[in-house]
Amino acid sequence: MRPKLVLFGDSITEESFCDGGWGAALAHQFARSADVVLRGYSGYNTRWALRVAARAMEGAGDAPAAVTVFFGANDAALPDRSSWFQHVPLDEYQRNLRSIHSFLKERWPSAVVILITPPPIDEDGRLQYPYTDGPSGLPERTNESAGAFAKACVAVAKELGVPYIDLWTKMQQFPDWEKSFLRDGLHFTPRGNRVLFEEVVQALKGVGLSLESLPVDLPLFSDVDPKDPLKSFDN
Amino acid sequence: MRPKLVLFGDSITEESFCDGGWGAALAHQFARSADVVLRGYSGYNTRWALRVAARAMEGAGDAPAAVTVFFGANDAALPDRSSWFQHVPLDEYQRNLRSIHSFLKERWPSAVVILITPPPIDEDGRLQYPYTDGPSGLPERTNESAGAFAKACVAVAKELGVPYIDLWTKMQQFPDWEKSFLRDGLHFTPRGNRVLFEEVVQALKGVGLSLESLPVDLPLFSDVDPKDPLKSFDN
Repeated sequence: MRPKLVLFGDSITEESFCDGGWGAALAHQFARSADVVLRGYSGYNTRWALRVAARAMEGAGDAPAAVTVFFGANDAALPDRSSWFQHVPLDEYQRNLRSIHSFLKERWPSAVVILITPPPIDEDGRLQYPYTDGPSGLPERTNESAGAFAKACVAVAKELGVPYIDLWTKMQQFPDWEKSFLRDGLHFTPRGNRVLFEEVVQALKGVGLSLESLPVDLPLFSDVDPKDPLKSFDN
Repeated sequence: MRPKLVLFGDSITEESFCDGGWGAALAHQFARSADVVLRGYSGYNTRWALRVAARAMEGAGDAPAAVTVFFGANDAALPDRSSWFQHVPLDEYQRNLRSIHSFLKERWPSAVVILITPPPIDEDGRLQYPYTDGPSGLPERTNESAGAFAKACVAVAKELGVPYIDLWTKMQQFPDWEKSFLRDGLHFTPRGNRVLFEEVVQALKGVGLSLESLPVDLPLFSDVDPKDPLKSFDN
Protein backbone atom coordinates (compact mmCIF):
# COMPACT_ATOMS: atom_id res chain seq x y z
CA MET A 1 0.00 0.00 0.00
CA ARG A 2 1.26 3.43 -0.93
CA PRO A 3 2.00 5.91 1.85
CA LYS A 4 -0.07 9.06 1.83
CA LEU A 5 1.03 12.70 2.03
CA VAL A 6 -1.59 15.17 3.20
CA LEU A 7 -1.17 18.85 2.33
CA PHE A 8 -3.04 20.96 4.92
CA GLY A 9 -2.92 24.70 4.46
CA ASP A 10 -4.40 27.89 3.07
CA SER A 11 -4.71 29.20 -0.50
CA ILE A 12 -1.07 28.43 -1.31
CA THR A 13 -1.94 24.81 -0.60
CA GLU A 14 -5.39 24.93 -2.23
CA GLU A 15 -3.90 26.16 -5.49
CA SER A 16 -0.91 23.82 -5.36
CA PHE A 17 -2.24 21.71 -8.24
CA CYS A 18 -2.30 24.62 -10.68
CA ASP A 19 0.12 24.57 -13.63
CA GLY A 20 3.58 24.24 -12.14
CA GLY A 21 2.14 23.91 -8.62
CA TRP A 22 4.12 22.35 -5.78
CA GLY A 23 1.37 19.85 -4.91
CA ALA A 24 1.06 18.61 -8.47
CA ALA A 25 4.86 18.34 -8.64
CA LEU A 26 4.84 16.15 -5.53
CA ALA A 27 2.08 13.96 -6.98
CA HIS A 28 4.11 13.68 -10.20
CA GLN A 29 7.34 12.89 -8.37
CA PHE A 30 5.64 10.15 -6.31
CA ALA A 31 3.30 9.00 -9.11
CA ARG A 32 4.25 5.37 -8.48
CA SER A 33 5.05 5.50 -4.78
CA ALA A 34 2.72 7.74 -2.74
CA ASP A 35 -0.70 9.38 -2.82
CA VAL A 36 -0.95 13.11 -2.32
CA VAL A 37 -4.13 14.32 -0.61
CA LEU A 38 -5.07 17.98 -0.95
CA ARG A 39 -6.62 19.83 1.99
CA GLY A 40 -6.07 23.49 1.13
CA TYR A 41 -8.53 26.13 2.34
CA SER A 42 -8.10 29.55 0.80
CA GLY A 43 -8.12 32.44 3.26
CA TYR A 44 -7.94 30.27 6.38
CA ASN A 45 -5.73 31.12 9.33
CA THR A 46 -4.69 28.72 12.11
CA ARG A 47 -7.71 29.66 14.24
CA TRP A 48 -10.12 28.58 11.53
CA ALA A 49 -7.94 25.60 10.55
CA LEU A 50 -7.95 24.31 14.10
CA ARG A 51 -11.73 24.64 14.26
CA VAL A 52 -12.21 22.54 11.08
CA ALA A 53 -9.23 20.17 11.31
CA ALA A 54 -11.29 17.11 12.28
CA ARG A 55 -13.75 17.68 9.45
CA ALA A 56 -10.96 18.43 6.97
CA MET A 57 -9.24 15.13 7.72
CA GLU A 58 -12.42 13.04 7.92
CA GLY A 59 -12.26 11.66 4.40
CA ALA A 60 -8.46 11.56 4.18
CA GLY A 61 -8.47 7.83 4.90
CA ASP A 62 -5.83 5.83 6.78
CA ALA A 63 -2.88 7.35 8.59
CA PRO A 64 -0.71 9.37 6.21
CA ALA A 65 3.06 9.05 6.36
CA ALA A 66 3.37 12.83 6.52
CA VAL A 67 1.25 15.96 6.75
CA THR A 68 2.46 19.41 5.71
CA VAL A 69 0.93 22.16 7.86
CA PHE A 70 1.28 25.43 6.01
CA PHE A 71 -0.54 28.35 7.62
CA GLY A 72 0.51 31.78 8.76
CA ALA A 73 0.24 33.94 5.65
CA ASN A 74 -3.29 34.91 6.74
CA ASP A 75 -2.56 34.99 10.47
CA ALA A 76 0.16 37.55 9.66
CA ALA A 77 -2.24 39.93 7.88
CA LEU A 78 -2.13 43.22 9.77
CA PRO A 79 -4.97 43.77 12.27
CA ASP A 80 -5.59 47.37 11.22
CA ARG A 81 -5.74 46.96 7.45
CA SER A 82 -8.09 45.46 4.87
CA SER A 83 -7.54 41.78 5.77
CA TRP A 84 -7.90 42.50 9.51
CA PHE A 85 -10.36 39.69 10.17
CA GLN A 86 -7.85 37.05 9.03
CA HIS A 87 -5.27 38.24 11.55
CA VAL A 88 -4.38 36.03 14.51
CA PRO A 89 -2.07 37.28 17.29
CA LEU A 90 1.40 35.79 17.25
CA ASP A 91 1.09 33.89 20.53
CA GLU A 92 -2.27 32.43 19.50
CA TYR A 93 -0.72 31.40 16.14
CA GLN A 94 1.88 29.41 18.07
CA ARG A 95 -0.74 27.84 20.35
CA ASN A 96 -2.85 26.93 17.31
CA LEU A 97 0.12 25.30 15.58
CA ARG A 98 0.76 23.23 18.69
CA SER A 99 -2.91 22.25 18.84
CA ILE A 100 -3.01 21.30 15.15
CA HIS A 101 0.11 19.21 15.69
CA SER A 102 -1.47 17.50 18.74
CA PHE A 103 -4.67 16.84 16.85
CA LEU A 104 -2.81 15.22 13.96
CA LYS A 105 -0.56 13.13 16.22
CA GLU A 106 -3.48 11.93 18.33
CA ARG A 107 -5.34 10.88 15.22
CA TRP A 108 -2.31 9.44 13.45
CA PRO A 109 0.55 8.77 15.91
CA SER A 110 2.86 7.53 13.16
CA ALA A 111 2.42 10.54 10.86
CA VAL A 112 5.28 13.02 10.53
CA VAL A 113 4.03 16.60 10.81
CA ILE A 114 6.07 19.09 8.77
CA LEU A 115 5.57 22.76 9.60
CA ILE A 116 6.01 25.31 6.81
CA THR A 117 6.47 28.99 7.62
CA PRO A 118 4.60 31.67 5.68
CA PRO A 119 6.48 32.89 2.59
CA PRO A 120 8.02 36.34 2.42
CA ILE A 121 5.78 39.17 1.26
CA ASP A 122 6.53 41.49 -1.64
CA GLU A 123 4.70 44.59 -0.46
CA ASP A 124 4.92 46.25 -3.85
CA GLY A 125 3.21 43.18 -5.34
CA ARG A 126 0.47 43.36 -2.72
CA LEU A 127 -0.22 46.99 -3.64
CA GLN A 128 -0.33 46.13 -7.33
CA TYR A 129 -2.87 43.33 -6.74
CA PRO A 130 -5.01 44.52 -3.81
CA TYR A 131 -7.91 42.33 -2.61
CA THR A 132 -10.23 45.26 -2.12
CA ASP A 133 -11.21 48.18 -4.33
CA GLY A 134 -9.50 51.46 -3.63
CA PRO A 135 -6.28 50.36 -1.96
CA SER A 136 -5.30 52.45 1.01
CA GLY A 137 -1.75 52.88 -0.23
CA LEU A 138 -0.61 50.52 2.51
CA PRO A 139 -0.31 46.77 1.98
CA GLU A 140 -2.53 44.50 4.11
CA ARG A 141 0.46 42.19 4.64
CA THR A 142 4.10 43.16 5.26
CA ASN A 143 7.28 41.18 4.99
CA GLU A 144 8.19 42.14 8.53
CA SER A 145 5.00 40.67 9.93
CA ALA A 146 5.37 37.49 7.82
CA GLY A 147 8.93 37.21 9.16
CA ALA A 148 7.77 37.40 12.76
CA PHE A 149 5.26 34.60 12.11
CA ALA A 150 7.91 32.57 10.30
CA LYS A 151 10.26 32.82 13.30
CA ALA A 152 7.39 31.87 15.60
CA CYS A 153 6.61 28.84 13.43
CA VAL A 154 10.25 27.70 13.48
CA ALA A 155 10.30 28.09 17.27
CA VAL A 156 7.24 25.85 17.62
CA ALA A 157 8.76 23.24 15.28
CA LYS A 158 11.98 23.17 17.33
CA GLU A 159 10.04 22.95 20.57
CA LEU A 160 7.97 20.03 19.23
CA GLY A 161 10.98 18.44 17.55
CA VAL A 162 9.32 18.20 14.15
CA PRO A 163 10.76 18.97 10.70
CA TYR A 164 10.10 22.42 9.32
CA ILE A 165 10.64 24.48 6.21
CA ASP A 166 11.62 28.09 6.81
CA LEU A 167 10.27 29.31 3.51
CA TRP A 168 10.42 32.97 4.53
CA THR A 169 14.19 32.77 4.93
CA LYS A 170 14.80 30.33 2.08
CA MET A 171 13.09 32.37 -0.62
CA GLN A 172 14.86 35.58 0.36
CA GLN A 173 18.23 33.94 -0.28
CA PHE A 174 17.60 34.28 -4.02
CA PRO A 175 17.99 37.52 -5.98
CA ASP A 176 14.76 39.04 -7.25
CA TRP A 177 12.69 36.73 -5.02
CA GLU A 178 9.95 39.39 -4.94
CA LYS A 179 8.96 39.06 -8.59
CA SER A 180 10.54 35.77 -9.45
CA PHE A 181 8.74 33.68 -6.79
CA LEU A 182 5.63 35.72 -5.99
CA ARG A 183 3.07 36.61 -8.64
CA ASP A 184 1.02 39.02 -6.51
CA GLY A 185 3.34 39.58 -3.60
CA LEU A 186 2.01 36.48 -1.78
CA HIS A 187 1.03 33.59 -4.06
CA PHE A 188 3.63 31.66 -6.03
CA THR A 189 4.85 31.83 -9.60
CA PRO A 190 5.91 28.47 -11.10
CA ARG A 191 9.47 29.23 -9.91
CA GLY A 192 8.21 29.95 -6.40
CA ASN A 193 6.28 26.68 -6.48
CA ARG A 194 9.49 24.95 -7.50
CA VAL A 195 11.33 26.28 -4.44
CA LEU A 196 8.70 24.91 -2.07
CA PHE A 197 8.47 21.61 -3.97
CA GLU A 198 12.21 21.08 -3.58
CA GLU A 199 12.10 21.99 0.10
CA VAL A 200 9.25 19.53 0.73
CA VAL A 201 11.11 16.80 -1.15
CA GLN A 202 14.13 17.46 1.08
CA ALA A 203 12.04 17.44 4.26
CA LEU A 204 10.35 14.18 3.24
CA LYS A 205 13.74 12.67 2.43
CA GLY A 206 14.88 13.64 5.91
CA VAL A 207 12.16 11.41 7.38
CA GLY A 208 12.81 8.49 5.05
CA LEU A 209 10.25 9.29 2.37
CA SER A 210 12.06 9.56 -0.95
CA LEU A 211 11.95 8.11 -4.44
CA GLU A 212 14.94 5.98 -3.50
CA SER A 213 13.49 4.62 -0.26
CA LEU A 214 9.81 4.15 -1.13
CA PRO A 215 8.77 0.93 -2.85
CA VAL A 216 7.41 1.28 -6.37
CA ASP A 217 3.74 0.40 -6.75
CA LEU A 218 3.75 -2.62 -9.12
CA PRO A 219 6.57 -3.56 -11.50
CA LEU A 220 8.14 -0.85 -13.61
CA PHE A 221 7.86 -1.35 -17.34
CA SER A 222 11.65 -1.51 -17.55
CA ASP A 223 11.57 -4.56 -15.23
CA VAL A 224 9.04 -6.48 -17.31
CA ASP A 225 10.62 -9.41 -19.16
CA PRO A 226 9.57 -9.11 -22.83
CA LYS A 227 9.77 -12.89 -23.21
CA ASP A 228 7.40 -13.57 -20.29
CA PRO A 229 5.68 -10.34 -19.24
CA LEU A 230 3.01 -11.88 -17.02
CA LYS A 231 5.64 -13.54 -14.83
CA SER A 232 6.56 -10.01 -13.62
CA PHE A 233 3.10 -9.61 -12.14
CA ASP A 234 3.10 -12.76 -10.01
CA ASN A 235 2.69 -11.86 -6.35
CA MET B 1 -16.81 13.54 2.78
CA ARG B 2 -15.36 14.34 -0.63
CA PRO B 3 -16.04 11.95 -3.47
CA LYS B 4 -13.00 10.30 -5.01
CA LEU B 5 -11.97 10.04 -8.66
CA VAL B 6 -9.55 7.24 -9.51
CA LEU B 7 -7.46 7.51 -12.68
CA PHE B 8 -6.49 3.99 -13.82
CA GLY B 9 -4.38 3.74 -16.93
CA ASP B 10 -0.98 3.55 -18.61
CA SER B 11 1.78 6.13 -19.03
CA ILE B 12 -0.62 8.83 -20.20
CA THR B 13 -2.29 8.46 -16.81
CA GLU B 14 0.94 8.00 -14.84
CA GLU B 15 2.32 11.28 -16.19
CA SER B 16 -0.97 13.14 -15.85
CA PHE B 17 0.35 15.23 -12.95
CA CYS B 18 3.20 16.71 -14.99
CA ASP B 19 3.11 20.44 -15.79
CA GLY B 20 -0.17 21.06 -17.57
CA GLY B 21 -1.23 17.45 -17.07
CA TRP B 22 -4.89 16.38 -17.22
CA GLY B 23 -4.80 14.68 -13.81
CA ALA B 24 -3.35 17.73 -12.08
CA ALA B 25 -5.93 19.90 -13.84
CA LEU B 26 -8.71 17.68 -12.46
CA ALA B 27 -7.23 17.87 -8.95
CA HIS B 28 -7.02 21.66 -9.33
CA GLN B 29 -10.57 21.95 -10.65
CA PHE B 30 -11.94 19.86 -7.75
CA ALA B 31 -9.49 21.20 -5.14
CA ARG B 32 -12.34 21.84 -2.71
CA SER B 33 -14.78 19.14 -3.78
CA ALA B 34 -13.15 15.82 -4.72
CA ASP B 35 -9.96 13.79 -4.26
CA VAL B 36 -8.12 12.55 -7.32
CA VAL B 37 -6.26 9.26 -6.88
CA LEU B 38 -3.56 8.38 -9.40
CA ARG B 39 -3.13 4.78 -10.54
CA GLY B 40 -1.13 5.09 -13.77
CA TYR B 41 1.25 2.33 -14.85
CA SER B 42 3.55 3.22 -17.70
CA GLY B 43 3.77 0.61 -20.46
CA TYR B 44 0.86 -1.49 -19.20
CA ASN B 45 -1.74 -2.96 -21.52
CA THR B 46 -5.17 -4.30 -20.47
CA ARG B 47 -3.78 -7.83 -19.96
CA TRP B 48 -1.29 -6.61 -17.37
CA ALA B 49 -3.78 -4.11 -15.90
CA LEU B 50 -6.33 -6.86 -15.34
CA ARG B 51 -3.69 -8.99 -13.65
CA VAL B 52 -2.78 -6.21 -11.17
CA ALA B 53 -6.14 -4.43 -10.81
CA ALA B 54 -6.85 -5.75 -7.29
CA ARG B 55 -3.41 -4.76 -6.06
CA ALA B 56 -3.57 -1.38 -7.80
CA MET B 57 -6.84 -0.51 -6.07
CA GLU B 58 -5.89 -1.93 -2.66
CA GLY B 59 -4.84 1.35 -1.09
CA ALA B 60 -7.34 3.50 -2.98
CA GLY B 61 -9.65 3.60 0.04
CA ASP B 62 -13.43 3.77 0.03
CA ALA B 63 -15.60 3.52 -3.06
CA PRO B 64 -14.75 6.24 -5.56
CA ALA B 65 -17.51 8.14 -7.32
CA ALA B 66 -15.84 7.47 -10.66
CA VAL B 67 -12.92 5.60 -12.20
CA THR B 68 -11.40 6.45 -15.57
CA VAL B 69 -10.09 3.36 -17.37
CA PHE B 70 -7.64 4.50 -20.00
CA PHE B 71 -5.76 1.66 -21.71
CA GLY B 72 -5.28 0.63 -25.29
CA ALA B 73 -2.33 2.69 -26.50
CA ASN B 74 -0.05 -0.23 -25.60
CA ASP B 75 -2.47 -2.99 -26.59
CA ALA B 76 -2.53 -1.37 -30.04
CA ALA B 77 1.26 -1.56 -30.49
CA LEU B 78 1.88 -3.69 -33.60
CA PRO B 79 2.75 -7.34 -32.90
CA ASP B 80 5.57 -7.45 -35.43
CA ARG B 81 7.45 -4.28 -34.45
CA SER B 82 9.64 -3.09 -31.58
CA SER B 83 6.88 -2.88 -28.93
CA TRP B 84 5.51 -6.33 -29.89
CA PHE B 85 5.33 -7.64 -26.33
CA GLN B 86 2.89 -4.91 -25.29
CA HIS B 87 0.45 -5.89 -28.02
CA VAL B 88 -2.86 -7.51 -27.09
CA PRO B 89 -5.24 -8.84 -29.77
CA LEU B 90 -8.32 -6.73 -30.36
CA ASP B 91 -10.84 -9.28 -29.07
CA GLU B 92 -8.80 -9.90 -25.91
CA TYR B 93 -8.57 -6.10 -25.39
CA GLN B 94 -12.37 -6.00 -25.40
CA ARG B 95 -12.64 -8.98 -23.03
CA ASN B 96 -10.10 -7.37 -20.71
CA LEU B 97 -12.00 -4.06 -20.66
CA ARG B 98 -15.17 -5.96 -19.74
CA SER B 99 -13.29 -7.80 -16.98
CA ILE B 100 -11.75 -4.60 -15.59
CA HIS B 101 -15.22 -3.06 -15.59
CA SER B 102 -16.66 -6.11 -13.78
CA PHE B 103 -13.86 -6.08 -11.25
CA LEU B 104 -14.41 -2.39 -10.46
CA LYS B 105 -18.20 -2.72 -10.25
CA GLU B 106 -18.00 -5.77 -7.99
CA ARG B 107 -15.63 -3.94 -5.68
CA TRP B 108 -17.47 -0.63 -5.82
CA PRO B 109 -21.04 -1.07 -7.14
CA SER B 110 -21.78 2.65 -6.94
CA ALA B 111 -18.70 3.77 -8.90
CA VAL B 112 -19.17 5.06 -12.43
CA VAL B 113 -16.61 3.53 -14.79
CA ILE B 114 -15.61 5.84 -17.65
CA LEU B 115 -13.80 4.22 -20.57
CA ILE B 116 -11.29 6.31 -22.53
CA THR B 117 -10.11 5.18 -25.96
CA PRO B 118 -6.45 5.34 -26.93
CA PRO B 119 -5.44 8.67 -28.48
CA PRO B 120 -4.59 8.98 -32.16
CA ILE B 121 -1.01 8.27 -33.17
CA ASP B 122 1.23 10.66 -35.09
CA GLU B 123 3.44 8.14 -36.87
CA ASP B 124 5.96 10.78 -37.88
CA GLY B 125 6.30 11.69 -34.20
CA ARG B 126 6.83 8.05 -33.27
CA LEU B 127 9.66 7.79 -35.80
CA GLN B 128 11.26 10.97 -34.49
CA TYR B 129 11.19 9.68 -30.90
CA PRO B 130 11.69 5.92 -31.19
CA TYR B 131 11.84 3.82 -28.01
CA THR B 132 14.68 1.65 -29.29
CA ASP B 133 18.00 2.44 -30.88
CA GLY B 134 18.17 2.17 -34.63
CA PRO B 135 14.56 2.68 -35.66
CA SER B 136 13.41 0.29 -38.35
CA GLY B 137 11.93 3.08 -40.42
CA LEU B 138 8.49 1.81 -39.44
CA PRO B 139 6.62 3.10 -36.39
CA GLU B 140 5.79 0.59 -33.62
CA ARG B 141 2.32 2.12 -33.37
CA THR B 142 0.06 3.32 -36.19
CA ASN B 143 -2.97 5.56 -36.17
CA GLU B 144 -4.95 2.90 -37.99
CA SER B 145 -4.32 0.33 -35.26
CA ALA B 146 -5.08 2.88 -32.50
CA GLY B 147 -8.32 3.67 -34.37
CA ALA B 148 -9.37 0.01 -34.42
CA PHE B 149 -8.79 -0.23 -30.64
CA ALA B 150 -10.66 3.04 -30.11
CA LYS B 151 -13.68 1.69 -32.00
CA ALA B 152 -13.49 -1.54 -30.02
CA CYS B 153 -13.39 0.43 -26.76
CA VAL B 154 -16.44 2.49 -27.74
CA ALA B 155 -18.27 -0.72 -28.66
CA VAL B 156 -17.58 -2.19 -25.21
CA ALA B 157 -18.69 1.03 -23.49
CA LYS B 158 -21.98 1.00 -25.44
CA GLU B 159 -22.52 -2.68 -24.70
CA LEU B 160 -21.94 -2.07 -20.96
CA GLY B 161 -23.90 1.17 -21.00
CA VAL B 162 -21.08 3.19 -19.42
CA PRO B 163 -19.83 6.68 -20.33
CA TYR B 164 -16.86 6.87 -22.66
CA ILE B 165 -14.50 9.38 -24.21
CA ASP B 166 -13.61 8.71 -27.83
CA LEU B 167 -10.32 10.54 -27.64
CA TRP B 168 -9.07 9.09 -30.92
CA THR B 169 -11.92 10.75 -32.83
CA LYS B 170 -12.08 13.90 -30.69
CA MET B 171 -8.44 14.87 -31.09
CA GLN B 172 -8.48 14.39 -34.85
CA GLN B 173 -11.25 16.97 -35.19
CA PHE B 174 -8.66 19.69 -34.59
CA PRO B 175 -6.20 20.96 -37.22
CA ASP B 176 -2.57 20.05 -36.59
CA TRP B 177 -3.57 17.55 -33.88
CA GLU B 178 -0.40 15.57 -34.64
CA LYS B 179 2.03 18.17 -33.32
CA SER B 180 -0.28 20.31 -31.30
CA PHE B 181 -1.57 17.54 -28.99
CA LEU B 182 1.15 14.88 -29.13
CA ARG B 183 4.73 15.60 -28.14
CA ASP B 184 6.23 12.32 -29.38
CA GLY B 185 3.42 10.98 -31.51
CA LEU B 186 1.74 9.34 -28.47
CA HIS B 187 2.09 11.27 -25.20
CA PHE B 188 0.41 14.61 -24.69
CA THR B 189 1.57 18.20 -24.95
CA PRO B 190 -0.08 20.64 -22.51
CA ARG B 191 -2.70 21.34 -25.20
CA GLY B 192 -3.34 17.63 -25.64
CA ASN B 193 -3.71 17.30 -21.88
CA ARG B 194 -6.21 20.13 -21.99
CA VAL B 195 -8.38 18.29 -24.51
CA LEU B 196 -8.59 15.21 -22.32
CA PHE B 197 -9.14 17.27 -19.17
CA GLU B 198 -12.12 18.98 -20.78
CA GLU B 199 -13.54 15.68 -22.01
CA VAL B 200 -13.23 14.12 -18.53
CA VAL B 201 -14.90 17.17 -16.97
CA GLN B 202 -17.76 16.75 -19.45
CA ALA B 203 -18.06 13.01 -18.80
CA LEU B 204 -18.08 13.59 -15.02
CA LYS B 205 -20.71 16.30 -15.43
CA GLY B 206 -22.81 13.80 -17.37
CA VAL B 207 -22.93 11.58 -14.28
CA GLY B 208 -23.63 14.41 -11.84
CA LEU B 209 -20.09 15.16 -10.76
CA SER B 210 -19.40 18.82 -11.45
CA LEU B 211 -18.22 21.94 -9.67
CA GLU B 212 -21.82 23.10 -9.65
CA SER B 213 -23.29 19.89 -8.21
CA LEU B 214 -20.61 18.80 -5.72
CA PRO B 215 -20.68 20.28 -2.23
CA VAL B 216 -17.72 22.46 -1.29
CA ASP B 217 -15.52 21.02 1.47
CA LEU B 218 -15.83 23.56 4.33
CA PRO B 219 -16.94 27.19 3.95
CA LEU B 220 -15.46 29.27 1.17
CA PHE B 221 -13.55 32.33 2.27
CA SER B 222 -16.07 34.49 0.43
CA ASP B 223 -18.82 33.07 2.66
CA VAL B 224 -17.01 33.84 5.92
CA ASP B 225 -18.61 36.75 7.80
CA PRO B 226 -15.81 39.23 8.64
CA LYS B 227 -17.72 40.32 11.74
CA ASP B 228 -18.02 36.79 13.14
CA PRO B 229 -15.74 34.43 11.21
CA LEU B 230 -15.94 31.47 13.58
CA LYS B 231 -19.71 31.33 13.22
CA SER B 232 -19.16 30.14 9.65
CA PHE B 233 -17.42 27.02 10.94
CA ASP B 234 -20.19 25.85 13.25
CA ASN B 235 -21.40 22.45 12.15
